[in-house]
Amino acid sequence: MSAYAELAEHFGKIGRLGDAVGVLYWDMATMMPAGGAEARSEQIATLRVIHHELQTDPKLAALFEQVGGESLDAWQKANVEEMRRQYTHATAVPSDLVSRLSRKGAQTEMVWRSARADNDFARLAPHLAETVELVRETARIKAEALGVTPYDALLDQYEPGGSSAKIDAIFDDLAGFLPEFLEAVLAHQAAQPEAVMPTGDFSVARQEKVARELMATLGFDFEHGRLDTSHHPFCGGVPDDVRLTTYYDPKGFIKGMMGVLHETGHALYERGLPAEWRYQPVGAARGMSVHESQSLLVEMQACRSKAFATYVAPIYKDAFAGSGDAWEVENLYRVMTRVERSLIRVDADEVTYPAHVILRYRLEKAMLSGDLQVADLPGAWREGMKELLGIEPPDDRDGCMQDIHWMDGTIGYFPTYTLGAMTAAQLFAAADRELGDVEAQLERGEFGGLMGWMGEKIHAKGSLLSTDALLTEATGETLNARYFKDHLRRRYLPEG
Amino acid sequence: MSAYAELAEHFGKIGRLGDAVGVLYWDMATMMPAGGAEARSEQIATLRVIHHELQTDPKLAALFEQVGGESLDAWQKANVEEMRRQYTHATAVPSDLVSRLSRKGAQTEMVWRSARADNDFARLAPHLAETVELVRETARIKAEALGVTPYDALLDQYEPGGSSAKIDAIFDDLAGFLPEFLEAVLAHQAAQPEAVMPTGDFSVARQEKVARELMATLGFDFEHGRLDTSHHPFCGGVPDDVRLTTYYDPKGFIKGMMGVLHETGHALYERGLPAEWRYQPVGAARGMSVHESQSLLVEMQACRSKAFATYVAPIYKDAFAGSGDAWEVENLYRVMTRVERSLIRVDADEVTYPAHVILRYRLEKAMLSGDLQVADLPGAWREGMKELLGIEPPDDRDGCMQDIHWMDGTIGYFPTYTLGAMTAAQLFAAADRELGDVEAQLERGEFGGLMGWMGEKIHAKGSLLSTDALLTEATGETLNARYFKDHLRRRYLPEG
Repeated sequence: MSAYAELAEHFGKIGRLGDAVGVLYWDMATMMPAGGAEARSEQIATLRVIHHELQTDPKLAALFEQVGGESLDAWQKANVEEMRRQYTHATAVPSDLVSRLSRKGAQTEMVWRSARADNDFARLAPHLAETVELVRETARIKAEALGVTPYDALLDQYEPGGSSAKIDAIFDDLAGFLPEFLEAVLAHQAAQPEAVMPTGDFSVARQEKVARELMATLGFDFEHGRLDTSHHPFCGGVPDDVRLTTYYDPKGFIKGMMGVLHETGHALYERGLPAEWRYQPVGAARGMSVHESQSLLVEMQACRSKAFATYVAPIYKDAFAGSGDAWEVENLYRVMTRVERSLIRVDADEVTYPAHVILRYRLEKAMLSGDLQVADLPGAWREGMKELLGIEPPDDRDGCMQDIHWMDGTIGYFPTYTLGAMTAAQLFAAADRELGDVEAQLERGEFGGLMGWMGEKIHAKGSLLSTDALLTEATGETLNARYFKDHLRRRYLPEG
Repeated sequence: MSAYAELAEHFGKIGRLGDAVGVLYWDMATMMPAGGAEARSEQIATLRVIHHELQTDPKLAALFEQVGGESLDAWQKANVEEMRRQYTHATAVPSDLVSRLSRKGAQTEMVWRSARADNDFARLAPHLAETVELVRETARIKAEALGVTPYDALLDQYEPGGSSAKIDAIFDDLAGFLPEFLEAVLAHQAAQPEAVMPTGDFSVARQEKVARELMATLGFDFEHGRLDTSHHPFCGGVPDDVRLTTYYDPKGFIKGMMGVLHETGHALYERGLPAEWRYQPVGAARGMSVHESQSLLVEMQACRSKAFATYVAPIYKDAFAGSGDAWEVENLYRVMTRVERSLIRVDADEVTYPAHVILRYRLEKAMLSGDLQVADLPGAWREGMKELLGIEPPDDRDGCMQDIHWMDGTIGYFPTYTLGAMTAAQLFAAADRELGDVEAQLERGEFGGLMGWMGEKIHAKGSLLSTDALLTEATGETLNARYFKDHLRRRYLPEG
């Protein structure tokens, strides 16, 4: 057996084991009764330990050496590269540090839940500081192993090959553009008729029915996946059995539907990954920014467009037994593209969302480098909000304590949201150039052209190419903020 | 670390892994879309391989030797004994034979599905013969490792410590009793008013609502389990999160409800296993005959009694919007205790079921010893049916091809059904002696006494005792056919 074949078998086992964990997670969020929680964490912890044992198997070092002398095709080469990356991340950090961070992170998250409710940053601060310290230690060690900066070493976990130098440039460009643009958008919006929330029968059964209809319109195959509900929408399961969830608010349908559309974008990516590379590292999604690009392409680029609003308005009106002007295309479009300065990232609109992300990116980089102490986070947060969004949170609950990410030590993840939004704009523009009038297709509820293009250019590529190369092959250039800015201008300042 | 502690850690890992597989199986039967089948079998196969690697870990031999010198309490001793048993089963057979049997069994099962539909035993026979041959080889090897007969070696997989010599005696006793008894029951039944199938609204929603109500009445805790539907009812999941299923026939409610009650019996056993021994071999259910005793105790002993019929008749009538005499206690009881000579085991009633099992037990023993060739199975089946049940199947589809068990090589399992029925009768009699009038409690829908007794005497004992010792502690003697025969006489020949 060649070293490559042995590696492929070994990592195939890791991949299948990881898929099993995916199903257990989905069940935990959707089906599991509360009393099953402890048993489930025992099951998942055990599978994670075995997963880690396999990823750090002592035989791998020799196989990686051997495989260098074997002749491989492009997919195999990329596969080995991904294996090495996983191996480096798994072996670089002493297991003692891994478990200290994991325990401290879990504790900080627990403290955060009550401290946030009580708006008590002082109670959280020492725990968060300790977590950040352990992340800094982890980042230093991984940086050495990967030969990159500490921040980029963390980023690499979510965004393989990601570079904060490049992100700095792109985010600075965007940060320079946004505040003034936001002023203009708000002024323009104030001159328009107000968006009116439509009323109707938003029972869960009605919402679910439309959700399934729209998923089918987008090309979701229910023979290979499910739609369920959970507290937070997510896309889980495995490529051949994609389990997505949403949350239905009986007071309105927009959030639930946009959640379904967003997660369907993730789901179609997973489903379109190359079947012949299942379970292998190269067969997996390229990274979090590309993943988010696929959900935002569907949700933001396609499904918040005027064209799609034109298609979907009568469907919604009929499904929710609506009547009156609020159900007309113009108003629904205004509702779906409403912009406002707001405090909470997860509720933010397309225009202000990047500002929330850029703030977090800058702060987490500063915490990692040591330029910002956890104790100074509330002040830095308020300053950043003022600079980027023009508002200040009245308290820490809706300020620097709003997100879960940092609590368990997740640093390096935030930028992928906005990289994803920008990638989506660039991909949509390229698809539109190549396919002709995508908007006309969306107005007829036809997603075959757009999603077929994504399938071929992005989904089917798995992790064959770097994110930069993938985007260059698909659009002719690496990530360029221009497309996102153009998109925002066209949608939010149509006269501008 | 003591050898015992190391063994406990290792087998705890195995237990948690096995639990994860249990959840994946449940999902496969209840939630998984058809297109997810291949990915799921890959996941499960991978976990099974890891499970087997852990069970056969080379370090175990030395630990088993070492642990002999350590001082252990009764639970720990029983735990080690169970570990050894698992280890022996896992290591005895060469992996080549294991995988040949597994592949051949899967193929035979596939052939069986179409051959049964076509009533074509000739097509099945060569495959089944090959499967049986591989089982014989497996049994011979396990017999040597365990120091028992080949049949008992197979039996030990499902019924630890089970002995075919004892089963022979008990089954012969029953086989001598049944044919004449059946004649008498049928004659008695013919002299009674006919059982009339009640009519009503048997929509799935109504059935599910009553099912949940009855489960709660029995003591099922929905904080630690679920009820769902699947093609065949089963009890899956894990002790802290028991997932049971049933199948609702919209044409009638009896089968679906009895399925729920049966599986709830299994579920309460799992849920009552000793929490402090979770994931350890000694914390698991004692074996399949005890497991079946718990489902049949609930379904047959308790819930097909006149007392329970008295309690449940108005509940059913109300739930299914029934009206008329067919919903009266007397008639419902007649429906639930109707006896007839029939061809199909899974549809058989309480009186004839043992005859189906005794037939299969005798035939599978003869196939294993070589006394019966697969080619001669149809003839032997017809003869046995005539002798034990007084009818002959018109074809092999409803004769020797009706069950899935032998197809994948499952031999040694059938007797546990009837051992379970007999154990249930013996346990019910003992509980009734100790608790006083259990029937009066059932008539009021009170299960706390009966199930509390089972919880203490059976559930909480896990695998601490052998089946014989468990039954002796609970009832004063080992399995005795008398209780089951007495039960049948009282219920089916009330004048006799």
